[in-house]
Amino acid sequence: MMEEYAVVGKAFRSVGGSDKVTGRAQYLDDIELPGMLHAKILRSPHAHARILKIDTSKAAALPGVKAVLSAVDCPKLPFGLDVPDARIFAETKVRYAGDEVAAVAAETPKIAREALKLIDVRYELLPALFSPQEALQEGAPLVHEDKPGNLVKSYVIERGDVDADFAACDYVFEEEFASSRVTACYLEPFGAIARWEPDNRLTIWTGIQGAFQARSEIARALGMNPSQITVKVPAIGGAFGGKIWIRNFHPIVALLAKEARRPVKFVLTRPEEFAASRPRVPAKIKIKLGMLKDGTLVCKDTAIVADNGAYSWAAPKIVLNMSLRTDCLYRFKSVRTRSYLAYTNTTPTSGFRGYGNAQSHFAQESMIDVCARKAGLDPVEVRLKNAVRQGDLTLHGWKVRSCGLTECIEKARAAIARGRKPQADPNGTVKRGIGLACMNHVSGNRAGNNFDGSSSMVRFQEDGKLVLYHGESDMGQGARTVLAQIAAETLGIRPEDVLVMPIDTDVSPFCFGSYSSRVTTVAGKAAYLASLQVREQLLKLAATLLEAAPEDLDVREGRIFVRGGERKGISVADVCKSAIRTRATVGLTAYVAYDPPTEGANEDFYGDYSSAYTYAAQAVEVEVNTETGQIRVLRVAAAHDVGRAINPNGIRGQIYGGVAQGAGWALYENMVYEGGRLQNNSLRNYTMVTATDMPEVEPIIVETQDPVGPYGAKGIGEPALIPMPPAVANAVEDAVGVRIRDLPITAEKIYFSLNPECEGPAS
Amino acid sequence: MMEEYAVVGKAFRSVGGSDKVTGRAQYLDDIELPGMLHAKILRSPHAHARILKIDTSKAAALPGVKAVLSAVDCPKLPFGLDVPDARIFAETKVRYAGDEVAAVAAETPKIAREALKLIDVRYELLPALFSPQEALQEGAPLVHEDKPGNLVKSYVIERGDVDADFAACDYVFEEEFASSRVTACYLEPFGAIARWEPDNRLTIWTGIQGAFQARSEIARALGMNPSQITVKVPAIGGAFGGKIWIRNFHPIVALLAKEARRPVKFVLTRPEEFAASRPRVPAKIKIKLGMLKDGTLVCKDTAIVADNGAYSWAAPKIVLNMSLRTDCLYRFKSVRTRSYLAYTNTTPTSGFRGYGNAQSHFAQESMIDVCARKAGLDPVEVRLKNAVRQGDLTLHGWKVRSCGLTECIEKARAAIARGRKPQADPNGTVKRGIGLACMNHVSGNRAGNNFDGSSSMVRFQEDGKLVLYHGESDMGQGARTVLAQIAAETLGIRPEDVLVMPIDTDVSPFCFGSYSSRVTTVAGKAAYLASLQVREQLLKLAATLLEAAPEDLDVREGRIFVRGGERKGISVADVCKSAIRTRATVGLTAYVAYDPPTEGANEDFYGDYSSAYTYAAQAVEVEVNTETGQIRVLRVAAAHDVGRAINPNGIRGQIYGGVAQGAGWALYENMVYEGGRLQNNSLRNYTMVTATDMPEVEPIIVETQDPVGPYGAKGIGEPALIPMPPAVANAVEDAVGVRIRDLPITAEKIYFSLNPECEGPAS
Repeated sequence: MMEEYAVVGKAFRSVGGSDKVTGRAQYLDDIELPGMLHAKILRSPHAHARILKIDTSKAAALPGVKAVLSAVDCPKLPFGLDVPDARIFAETKVRYAGDEVAAVAAETPKIAREALKLIDVRYELLPALFSPQEALQEGAPLVHEDKPGNLVKSYVIERGDVDADFAACDYVFEEEFASSRVTACYLEPFGAIARWEPDNRLTIWTGIQGAFQARSEIARALGMNPSQITVKVPAIGGAFGGKIWIRNFHPIVALLAKEARRPVKFVLTRPEEFAASRPRVPAKIKIKLGMLKDGTLVCKDTAIVADNGAYSWAAPKIVLNMSLRTDCLYRFKSVRTRSYLAYTNTTPTSGFRGYGNAQSHFAQESMIDVCARKAGLDPVEVRLKNAVRQGDLTLHGWKVRSCGLTECIEKARAAIARGRKPQADPNGTVKRGIGLACMNHVSGNRAGNNFDGSSSMVRFQEDGKLVLYHGESDMGQGARTVLAQIAAETLGIRPEDVLVMPIDTDVSPFCFGSYSSRVTTVAGKAAYLASLQVREQLLKLAATLLEAAPEDLDVREGRIFVRGGERKGISVADVCKSAIRTRATVGLTAYVAYDPPTEGANEDFYGDYSSAYTYAAQAVEVEVNTETGQIRVLRVAAAHDVGRAINPNGIRGQIYGGVAQGAGWALYENMVYEGGRLQNNSLRNYTMVTATDMPEVEPIIVETQDPVGPYGAKGIGEPALIPMPPAVANAVEDAVGVRIRDLPITAEKIYFSLNPECEGPAS
Repeated sequence: MMEEYAVVGKAFRSVGGSDKVTGRAQYLDDIELPGMLHAKILRSPHAHARILKIDTSKAAALPGVKAVLSAVDCPKLPFGLDVPDARIFAETKVRYAGDEVAAVAAETPKIAREALKLIDVRYELLPALFSPQEALQEGAPLVHEDKPGNLVKSYVIERGDVDADFAACDYVFEEEFASSRVTACYLEPFGAIARWEPDNRLTIWTGIQGAFQARSEIARALGMNPSQITVKVPAIGGAFGGKIWIRNFHPIVALLAKEARRPVKFVLTRPEEFAASRPRVPAKIKIKLGMLKDGTLVCKDTAIVADNGAYSWAAPKIVLNMSLRTDCLYRFKSVRTRSYLAYTNTTPTSGFRGYGNAQSHFAQESMIDVCARKAGLDPVEVRLKNAVRQGDLTLHGWKVRSCGLTECIEKARAAIARGRKPQADPNGTVKRGIGLACMNHVSGNRAGNNFDGSSSMVRFQEDGKLVLYHGESDMGQGARTVLAQIAAETLGIRPEDVLVMPIDTDVSPFCFGSYSSRVTTVAGKAAYLASLQVREQLLKLAATLLEAAPEDLDVREGRIFVRGGERKGISVADVCKSAIRTRATVGLTAYVAYDPPTEGANEDFYGDYSSAYTYAAQAVEVEVNTETGQIRVLRVAAAHDVGRAINPNGIRGQIYGGVAQGAGWALYENMVYEGGRLQNNSLRNYTMVTATDMPEVEPIIVETQDPVGPYGAKGIGEPALIPMPPAVANAVEDAVGVRIRDLPITAEKIYFSLNPECEGPAS
């Protein structure tokens, strides 16, 4: 039996939720500053072209225009992550249709749009590359002249003797899988407001996932010190990894504000969100799998070719994740992966819920089913047989401190079996099938020896209310709710009595940011530890007031009492007043910088780099119309090992959302280009899952007690999406015997697979 | 020899100074919020009247008016300090000409003003009281029906056997002195902006001296929890004690904003600043002084009658100060004080630079000269003979841990003697004289057993810059500069590299506020202690990087090195980066709640209630035209014991300002009433010292090493004003043999004193 808590694991209204549903929450676009201007960005219409001339004089002369900038006006400092190849504006050439060429700040958005039309840019078209396969061919034109072969990054990772192990296998199968280019498509477009303050300080408002990371990146692009910049994070309308990193518009809006000496707001339009945001890294993944007759998975050889787009952001790290993580889901004896990430003349790709792990799970979890079927085995049994378990040390060095994978598989299988519809309609047109896929993921991800922690500060107010300071953005995932719960549980107060402060880099404790599904586990642990310190201060003072020993005291529902004497005691508010308003001088404040007890990976990417590993199995039932190929996901049983559930409502919310987003990727979403120009750049023609497509979802919370996470908790943010595409693909094969190897699994693809005599795309 | 420091005691540009001189600083009235309304308050034109009717309907109907409030619409919670007799609006009657009757919020200030005219109020006049002497008479009408005798507070404080000591004295003299009603007259009128936030939270912007105190007072008036309110302090254009406490407009603006559901701004007009602010408590002080032939001061019997005005704010505490502090300036054997504070139908009086101590110093320091002259002794020698000294325990229980009084007297005397003009012009019309007065004051003032401390947080940023969080307002006195210097000195960095955060009660560490000349001593000590903790963290980490022992390291000018090897070492910035960006996980943050090691006074007001006591002697040379009575202060030598001088420029600034303000009080300032209505309610007819009247000032910094204050420092805020009026009065007597006993010392008073045969007011 797990311990029962007062707040942890209990329903609690979402912090900030009522603001959102009543329209009071302040998103970026709700912020109005006195004298604020509006910015628009001129983008390249061409995928690859030399810039012959930029003439901004007519735009600058338009009444109401207060600043016009292009590359000549800006610092030329490279920025970006591992491969800093970005500049604020395109300089000598444009590298994708959407590349920033110039920008305008004007009194109104309309004037700014008009001004863009007056900017005269002459281009000389260059041959463009639209796939990494083309880009990696010898003699291909170069996207960046200083990046020979268009290669951004390649990895070779090998554990064990793969070749020897393959030789000893009963079965060796090989398949190739492809994932599509999809956008995070959050509800609120990304944007920023910049204002220059006295002393040459810069304030940036932006709904970003990692405020401190943004601060140092903006500083780098502008050649400033991070501490000269304040990043403030308003309410965020979704992010999903698409708002982890800064965009060019961040330094642009800062420079426009500097030039105009007025605050400047910029918000991406929806077409810009499609054409110039950071879609998921598309990858072709070829897997060779070695298996024994009894279903034991022995070895795996993987080749990955991935599309970086025109500039490099997180894609190198994402391809690294693709190359590693799925290896740790099962007890492989040996694995080898070769990965190549190439520049192309397409929108730069980057992070999106799963961070590479979703792409490789689609490949591997499809592959398990393919192999099991070929070997005449039950794919679910194969998973159970090989599933990693608590206490394992995986071949990449992960220490599995808690693991509910087996339980997830069993529960998802049982749940989907309950209430199954007939496998086929009486007339045989509609066929149904079930499929299951697993996943593992991290809760935090240490890069090298870098800080992967979080800091937290909690402070009691004189009236017994608590202020909690943290640095990790709440993009809607419920970070603030979970942190309030953890602090309230630890301090014995109601979560309603916790004020969770907004993010402001001048005020918030330093931390890494809201990514890698790390907030509950890592930021939550920091909040827990800070609360624990304040609890000690509180009880010590209460002990003197109650004339008792601190160790005999407990605190619950805002009252401190000697254990066994709940009725007596003293209120937290009274102790706080006494601490703060008298000369007791107890600060009732604690600041904790926490870094999880993980090692980080070595140069060969071996190591225990996350504080907790999460597991899931999602089982789906699909229905396929064999005459049209039309497919519906009927039901999803999503079993997730979340460690201890702090906020079960929030976890279910994450599962619903992840299933919806995963189903969209599985079935519909795909960015279609022609000549490097995105053809479906609006919500009208980019198909997503809507309410009518939404399957019935049964979220199954599998609780394990993680030894590191606060109250045993682990992350759920990204995991909820990851298993959906392979689970759907597996169910489709179960229903109609057709294996779709490239996302999305469209009716068209199924139709042509079922009717190979017809001409058309087959998987 | 005192220790030499890198930053402490050195010239450093004022933090925020360049913002002010370039106009970039954001004062309250510079703040514009989207949708913000403007408020105006309808005030009573009568000193005392029953309210028969308030009809706001016409005002409410005026287009552009968004809210109209009077007492019926508001909480009826009493607020105030020791005697909470204030309500948000006058209810059944008005008690002074200026009392708040109704308020309007409208789209523009003009509409709000128009709306005030449409509010129909009917009054029935009541007999009014304009002096405490009238008010204390038997049968006087009552200002508050529940306060019999109009007595707000009275004190009797006695140490030793006063009567017996008088009997043993060689001389016993008695005189009465009166101080005038003057206004703090800061440059920036007081005001507030209120905005209601989600979750029924309230944000108040206001240039107040004590944000946390304001938060709890506003909460009290509105019936809220303090933690539901955020007080943010913009740049302040002077305060001088006049902005310590909230005014009625604080709850009013909050309620208007609630009613209108829009932010509301209110700023006092200058006439309102005069008529409805909080002037200095006027007092009549009768002193009987017992002295020996050799000039030894033996005993003193004091009677005080002071004017509280219509509502009670700080006047009870102020009268307490009047009744105590001067007793500790000299080594009296016994003292007795009886004080009476009475309600009148005048503007409520409250704190203003000196907080009562200035009024009693005018009396006592005038009295010393009167007595010395009568006894044929040199008044300066009498002071030197009796001056309190380091190590003394005064008869009210103060422990004098550092004291430069004797040195101040000697230096001021010597300085004023240098370059004296002739005592009379050749034709005898103009006569000149010198006078000297001393003062003592506190640096912090513990009320009972309450917290009299400060909290501070310092945090290094990843680039080696420091953020300092504090809670004490900078009203122009240089709090931020001194705190930056203390942190920089302690951490071995440049003060330019310290970002001193603005005050925001959600962010700033809890503290008492900027009064009692406590900021340098108490808040400075908190900043010092927090910096010391971070220094330890910094050196510990640097030690591992430099492979040295932490105790062998020093840090100076942003570099950490092994002592003796200044050239080598590592930059603070590099250590910070390593602390924050790697898994070293050093928070480089410390939060310290500090309360000075004082006892507080007991119920009989005995006790050591300030962490440091300051001393000063100001000597002035005046010139009096005997034909017109016109007086000019020619020179001032102002010697102040400030403990260790952290920021000598700032101290000199305080001395210039204090001398100017003290000279204004001494010579010109006086609020003149007729029938309870202020006659000089503008800068046109309320005479203050201007540049042409400003004497030549020689600030003399007398350094002592205070054992409690940071780096030995003590306060200077209030002391700089206190000795001026008596010093001027003493110099006038020295010049023309006339003793003026009531402030201000006008030409008229001197003229009539010199020409007693003429009719007119004599002192």
